[in-house]
Amino acid sequence: MITGVERVRAAYARIAQVDRPEVWIGLRAQADAESDAAAVDAKVAAGDRLPLAGTVLAVKGNIDVAGLPTTAGCPAYAYEPDTDAPAVARLKAAGAVVLGTTNLDQFATGLVGTRSPYGAVRNALSPEHVSGGSSSGSAVAVALGIADIALGTDTAGSGRIPAAFNGIVGLKPTFGLIPTEGVVPACASLDCVTVFARTLPEAEQALSLMAAPPGRALSARAPRRPGPWRIAVPELGQLGRLDTGWTEAFEAAAQRLADAGAELLPVDLAPFTEAAAMLYEGAFVAERYTAVGAFIDAHKDSPDLDPTVAGIISRAKDIPAHQLYADQQKLAALRTRALATLGDADALLLPTSPSHPTIAEVAADPLGVNARLGRFTNSTNLFDLAAVAVPAGDVNGLPFGVMLIGAAFTEERLVSIAGLLTNPPLRLAVIGAHLSEQPLNGQLLAVGGRLVRTTTTSQAYRLYALDTLPPKPGLVRVGKSGGGGGGAIEAEVWQLPAEGLGKFLAELPRPMVLGSVELADGSFVTGFLCEAEAVEGAREITSYGGWRAYLAALSRP
Amino acid sequence: MITGVERVRAAYARIAQVDRPEVWIGLRAQADAESDAAAVDAKVAAGDRLPLAGTVLAVKGNIDVAGLPTTAGCPAYAYEPDTDAPAVARLKAAGAVVLGTTNLDQFATGLVGTRSPYGAVRNALSPEHVSGGSSSGSAVAVALGIADIALGTDTAGSGRIPAAFNGIVGLKPTFGLIPTEGVVPACASLDCVTVFARTLPEAEQALSLMAAPPGRALSARAPRRPGPWRIAVPELGQLGRLDTGWTEAFEAAAQRLADAGAELLPVDLAPFTEAAAMLYEGAFVAERYTAVGAFIDAHKDSPDLDPTVAGIISRAKDIPAHQLYADQQKLAALRTRALATLGDADALLLPTSPSHPTIAEVAADPLGVNARLGRFTNSTNLFDLAAVAVPAGDVNGLPFGVMLIGAAFTEERLVSIAGLLTNPPLRLAVIGAHLSEQPLNGQLLAVGGRLVRTTTTSQAYRLYALDTLPPKPGLVRVGKSGGGGGGAIEAEVWQLPAEGLGKFLAELPRPMVLGSVELADGSFVTGFLCEAEAVEGAREITSYGGWRAYLAALSRP
Repeated sequence: MITGVERVRAAYARIAQVDRPEVWIGLRAQADAESDAAAVDAKVAAGDRLPLAGTVLAVKGNIDVAGLPTTAGCPAYAYEPDTDAPAVARLKAAGAVVLGTTNLDQFATGLVGTRSPYGAVRNALSPEHVSGGSSSGSAVAVALGIADIALGTDTAGSGRIPAAFNGIVGLKPTFGLIPTEGVVPACASLDCVTVFARTLPEAEQALSLMAAPPGRALSARAPRRPGPWRIAVPELGQLGRLDTGWTEAFEAAAQRLADAGAELLPVDLAPFTEAAAMLYEGAFVAERYTAVGAFIDAHKDSPDLDPTVAGIISRAKDIPAHQLYADQQKLAALRTRALATLGDADALLLPTSPSHPTIAEVAADPLGVNARLGRFTNSTNLFDLAAVAVPAGDVNGLPFGVMLIGAAFTEERLVSIAGLLTNPPLRLAVIGAHLSEQPLNGQLLAVGGRLVRTTTTSQAYRLYALDTLPPKPGLVRVGKSGGGGGGAIEAEVWQLPAEGLGKFLAELPRPMVLGSVELADGSFVTGFLCEAEAVEGAREITSYGGWRAYLAALSRP
Repeated sequence: MITGVERVRAAYARIAQVDRPEVWIGLRAQADAESDAAAVDAKVAAGDRLPLAGTVLAVKGNIDVAGLPTTAGCPAYAYEPDTDAPAVARLKAAGAVVLGTTNLDQFATGLVGTRSPYGAVRNALSPEHVSGGSSSGSAVAVALGIADIALGTDTAGSGRIPAAFNGIVGLKPTFGLIPTEGVVPACASLDCVTVFARTLPEAEQALSLMAAPPGRALSARAPRRPGPWRIAVPELGQLGRLDTGWTEAFEAAAQRLADAGAELLPVDLAPFTEAAAMLYEGAFVAERYTAVGAFIDAHKDSPDLDPTVAGIISRAKDIPAHQLYADQQKLAALRTRALATLGDADALLLPTSPSHPTIAEVAADPLGVNARLGRFTNSTNLFDLAAVAVPAGDVNGLPFGVMLIGAAFTEERLVSIAGLLTNPPLRLAVIGAHLSEQPLNGQLLAVGGRLVRTTTTSQAYRLYALDTLPPKPGLVRVGKSGGGGGGAIEAEVWQLPAEGLGKFLAELPRPMVLGSVELADGSFVTGFLCEAEAVEGAREITSYGGWRAYLAALSRP
């Protein structure tokens, strides 16, 4: 296994290689990180079980890391905390090594990643596009393979939009599940610490380690059910304008959930989007003035302030409290409508964002472009829901992302459902001992397989009786449509969880192989074939039309 | 039993007799109320079980009663609702007959009862003193014996201060327990419908009938325990300045709870009084602008507006939302401190108000005097607690009141504890078959009695062995200090709930009687005596010193 020190060295090598200095506000000296890693390595060598040993961590610049300045993206605001925020301390205690603090939209105010005197953060995959924000540097550090996991924050989408734009996972847990002590408040009644990772299990593990009270399993909060899941999916018309190709990509994501066995339910998106609009038009922005308004007023002309952010927060000073009360009442009514339309759905499926702008587009209209990005994310925290953002394919060379949004404390369920998208179930054509009722069929059932349909191969295959124990057939492709003397062979198509198929493949004995098999309808599916040498000298049984028919003939007197 | 019609007639006769026209805003025509009562009488005659049949009800003027204008104390604001507020509808369905709508501090903004163009409401017992508010008319209608029960509302004390000032019960239930539909909002996030009554059982019954969901027993919410109760009582120094004699009256109330078996616990009142101060100094008043600010702005110079109320609400327009967020955070911290200091106490005992001003004193300083009144009531709703205000004796000819404040949904427990003040346990001296271990002692235990002490009577009594079954002694007073040939007789003093002693007396068989018995220390206590004729011809056993000694001598060979 790679040591912690080796992992840290690889991270710094990658930092040098990618040349994205704007990702970091407080990058630690490599020697310091290596020293921490060496300490972790020593503990592991001494027998300590550290679940995050060998994991490197980036921390958003509004979260306290002892020894590094907390800036919230504003040099003049910087202070040097004595202690780590509990979220950071818990990950470090589990063996994670901090690389440094990352860039962000100043005071976590923005969804673009460009609102920072430390520089606009470029997208990991397309430098002319925005990274998304406000947790811009954290998301890009993970997407570029520098950090394994990174901490962000999310008030209106800051932990999810950058995940979508950079093709990674962003997990926004229930408000209060991770302590926000040591985090510079944006809107204290809504702020959540979030996790970025390249895979769902990594994100879920980090969440589990940070969740309060420490050590309490997430699963104690909401029982983990096996599904089948009920997924609320809005009509496409309610999504409004999306980037080219995104509507189709969203439909495909919904279809993948349905293919994996989920039931799709209708839902009225209106209360969600109406609440989202309130975040920019309503009184809620005043909570940002409560947090840092006095600071901003005292530093009016400082070049350390991002002018867009300073303008948003300064203007919030004059919002009257009576409007806030009215908005809180309106929001409560919208939440009631939202929960009613969700009914007993396990999750709501939405695009993470309606569009992915370029840095130039944001510069031309900083407020308008930003406001549109939050159409689907803004209501989550206002309604006290949890969410996970996951990649759902590429469109026009850029990642497209979706969210699964669910009730408070259903993070584990949301991660399970999201797993159907990131690792959709796979299909496997079997033609021999794995057919239903045959001796090895139990192997498919053991990894969660289920029979999808019974069919035949195309006419392009020959079948041989191999000299194996138990007896197995070998399928060999001989050319298109029987031109090579083949025939249609009985096949069953099974659906298996992705990890199930991987496990299956890892245990496959020679001379069997898995490859792409053509079915009677011309489609291709992963299926059993065999090494060519195995059929040398074996009896060809193509004319029986399948393994079962051959066995039946054998057993006839 | 008195009919509903007779009860209504008596109510209107009392209205004419007391000459307090300012109590009412919308008094119904007597014929209409009689007609409603006749309908209830007919239902009862037909066999319907209506728990409030024969009960007359007054409704605060900010609660909808179909057919009467809802004014909230402002003629220009009046509208005529088509339907009753659910709170009213549920009481009417149970047989209550509405007399009319009552006067209030305009828009339920005030604790004095003088802020109304319909006139300052005079105190029921002392017309130069304020009635208290904002539910002024409702409280006075009950205190004067016009209505049996009355509805108020309570945002900062409006359902309790007038109860205290008029010597009646005011029950402020948990926020949300009674629906506030059909109630003009004051602060929608704090407003509660409340009940006034002369006795705790009447108030509790009305609450139970109004509570949502209808028909669900209150006791389903918080289990009714038998005690002993743990009562938090602040140090007198934390109460601040109280009216003359009120400190002693408060101490006496605490002592009555202790005498009844409650454990008194220390508590830090600071978070309660700091939160109370926020109601006047902080941003929370802006919620009143949300409710009626636009109306007040549109009627700036109307004589229908109370100038003090209009000023308070108008000024709230400019309170900034960022201050509200800051105050909400400060309040949340105070609530945490308050709940921590309450710990596992069953209730907090407080004076309902620190003082009882005259109408002239309020006129001289309308804001300052009003603000001081809420010192103990303001924090209850802000902390999401329940409370019941009860009379606790008279001081200088005016009622003094205390509150029991407890966690949400503990109304039944608070009423039980308050019952110890309104009906403190009574003491009974027993000298015969009711002594410990004697045949009838179980009757005392069955009604909740407990032994307080063992003593003797003074020397003024003679004891006789009566010809009863089971055998009983008869105690007869023969003159002071043995001058009449008496002696000291063994006695046990028992403590019984008031209702227990009443029940005991109702079942007492001749020739036993209960009277006042002098004990060895010269004090008097209710105790067993007997009719004079029963001792004619009976054996005098005074010289044995008691019933037990006599029985012991009898049984000796």
